[in-house]
Amino acid sequence: MSRAWNFSAGPAALPEAVLKRAQAEMLDWNGTGASVMELSHRGKPFMQLAAAAEQRLRQLLAIPSNYKVLFLQGGATQHFAQIPMNLAPEGGSADYIVTGVFSKKAVSEAAFHVDARVAATSEATDFLTLPPRAGWQLNPEASYVHYTPNETIRGLEFHEIPDVGEVPLVADMSSNILGAPLDVSRFGLIYAGAQKNIGPSGLVLMIVRDDLLARPPRSIARILRYAEQAANDSMLNTPNTWGWYVAGLTFEWIEGQGGLAAMGERNARKSAMVYDAIDGSDGFYRNDVERAARSRMNVSFVLHDSALDSVFLAESEAAGFIGLKGHKAVGGMRASLYNAVSQPAVEALVQFMRDFAARHG
Amino acid sequence: MSRAWNFSAGPAALPEAVLKRAQAEMLDWNGTGASVMELSHRGKPFMQLAAAAEQRLRQLLAIPSNYKVLFLQGGATQHFAQIPMNLAPEGGSADYIVTGVFSKKAVSEAAFHVDARVAATSEATDFLTLPPRAGWQLNPEASYVHYTPNETIRGLEFHEIPDVGEVPLVADMSSNILGAPLDVSRFGLIYAGAQKNIGPSGLVLMIVRDDLLARPPRSIARILRYAEQAANDSMLNTPNTWGWYVAGLTFEWIEGQGGLAAMGERNARKSAMVYDAIDGSDGFYRNDVERAARSRMNVSFVLHDSALDSVFLAESEAAGFIGLKGHKAVGGMRASLYNAVSQPAVEALVQFMRDFAARHG
Repeated sequence: MSRAWNFSAGPAALPEAVLKRAQAEMLDWNGTGASVMELSHRGKPFMQLAAAAEQRLRQLLAIPSNYKVLFLQGGATQHFAQIPMNLAPEGGSADYIVTGVFSKKAVSEAAFHVDARVAATSEATDFLTLPPRAGWQLNPEASYVHYTPNETIRGLEFHEIPDVGEVPLVADMSSNILGAPLDVSRFGLIYAGAQKNIGPSGLVLMIVRDDLLARPPRSIARILRYAEQAANDSMLNTPNTWGWYVAGLTFEWIEGQGGLAAMGERNARKSAMVYDAIDGSDGFYRNDVERAARSRMNVSFVLHDSALDSVFLAESEAAGFIGLKGHKAVGGMRASLYNAVSQPAVEALVQFMRDFAARHG
Repeated sequence: MSRAWNFSAGPAALPEAVLKRAQAEMLDWNGTGASVMELSHRGKPFMQLAAAAEQRLRQLLAIPSNYKVLFLQGGATQHFAQIPMNLAPEGGSADYIVTGVFSKKAVSEAAFHVDARVAATSEATDFLTLPPRAGWQLNPEASYVHYTPNETIRGLEFHEIPDVGEVPLVADMSSNILGAPLDVSRFGLIYAGAQKNIGPSGLVLMIVRDDLLARPPRSIARILRYAEQAANDSMLNTPNTWGWYVAGLTFEWIEGQGGLAAMGERNARKSAMVYDAIDGSDGFYRNDVERAARSRMNVSFVLHDSALDSVFLAESEAAGFIGLKGHKAVGGMRASLYNAVSQPAVEALVQFMRDFAARHG
């Protein structure tokens, strides 16, 4: 067996230690004589697993006690629709900051369920910059302000949490949650698809402040209401038990690595290595994102001659790299550097990039 | 490692061969150098897996070409709400046949999104019987008729597909899909949470006729529309890739066992063994469900003296059985006999039941 150097944007690399543990426990988890997939979510063994995973996450992120943690389904996209149903009244309004394909998609899905106002957008620069906070046209009556702290396609990241006053801030952190320490108290609601920094796809982690759960419910099915899920420990129906399990293993792994401070330092170092390789390539590689907004999670780059794209992809694949192809919306290359992508993997990538430039420069 | 005799109602036993395969492939699936959880759903390897799983399912169930197969999320409960949003117009009406806790829950969730009329119910018998077809008060103008072919809690199963005329029949088959051959052409829409007869929780399989997808969409987010998911091969956003993978392995396993005819015979034999043990116990065990509606998937039984319940559970657990406790709504015991529950497991259970009765009778 040989493991590839996996730079996929998501679903993405998981820590090898997590995979090995899941492998070892596949036929007999925790002495139950069954896979964790084969057990009732309401039985004591899984209930303990579920509570322990939440507890670990609470410690990692120092989540204040007035926030609930939910383990949901549907991917972030479903919650683009469900968030307005839960946080805004029928006919209400919400502000959206648009900085890339995913925040734009958040607007278009939300628009069926709320007046989704674009309060700021960097579409004019083709999402290579962040719209300066001073220019945001925020509505103080908005039910919430939604933004995407990290946009995976361009590799564009907010390195500060924007101040939006009293209106609750809602963040789609699918691609940067757990990548560094975070002040949860600045947010009304944080949500993240698991398949980048947490675990397998099919799980959505949500951290939501109590007062938002107390907003009067719309006339929607109970299963769609976050307050109901919170009141039922995310078990209003059968949750994604496998996803919850792998997420718990990942939280434990992060803890063992030194927690989020260690993750943040490591991710800063890893991304700096790739940006250095790009910036020091004499124009062979190029990253066009505004310097101050470069992502630590997704590093996109183009080759000076796009005719070399297919050569780069073929040679990198032959050398054991996967997931380097850029998103089809922008082309080029992209290296995603989530927590589970190791320092040696990044060293191998940087070496490959230098060798490739030397051969084809 | 010792494997338990697993009779859980769901999440439930998976075929050991499927678990072993998933275990072997955990760090390197299909020569990719990555777990299937670590790969893009849009990459060629996963796309092939996804298409092959669908193809296998189509063959197993002989699904006609005018039906789409979807791999969704949210559990059956979410689709209690989503089905009316998709199949009925705003202000429309649908008929529900209520035969247990789950069909009742289907009504209460749907009621937020459609006029959910109870066209027949067996609640008066505490769901120990099926309401005779002749008494159903069907509305010919209904957008669909919804029923639950197998109710897991009592263990109550329709052994014939009811004739509801021209109105599309919608079935929540979470607990009996793939348990026997099925004439898909009799249905408008079939859906099933995976965690009983298909794979891990967090995946919903849906089989839906083209003309239902062509009904005019309500003003709901695209991600909630089945027609959009169908048009995007269930990849409007990232699907539950692990669930899809395990489902594919299960379909392959069923095929290797001889397909649905073999499954149906095996399940009939397994359930007959447990019912025989109950009926032949001289009243020590009792099953109160109407004979003709006894489920082949979930066999519920009570002990003649409920003071023995905790003894039965403790002794069965010590003997290596799990999941035999009945649902809290009805108490007693329940043995779920899904496809992955082997003949030897059922033999062990029946032997244990006889021994227990001899010891405590």
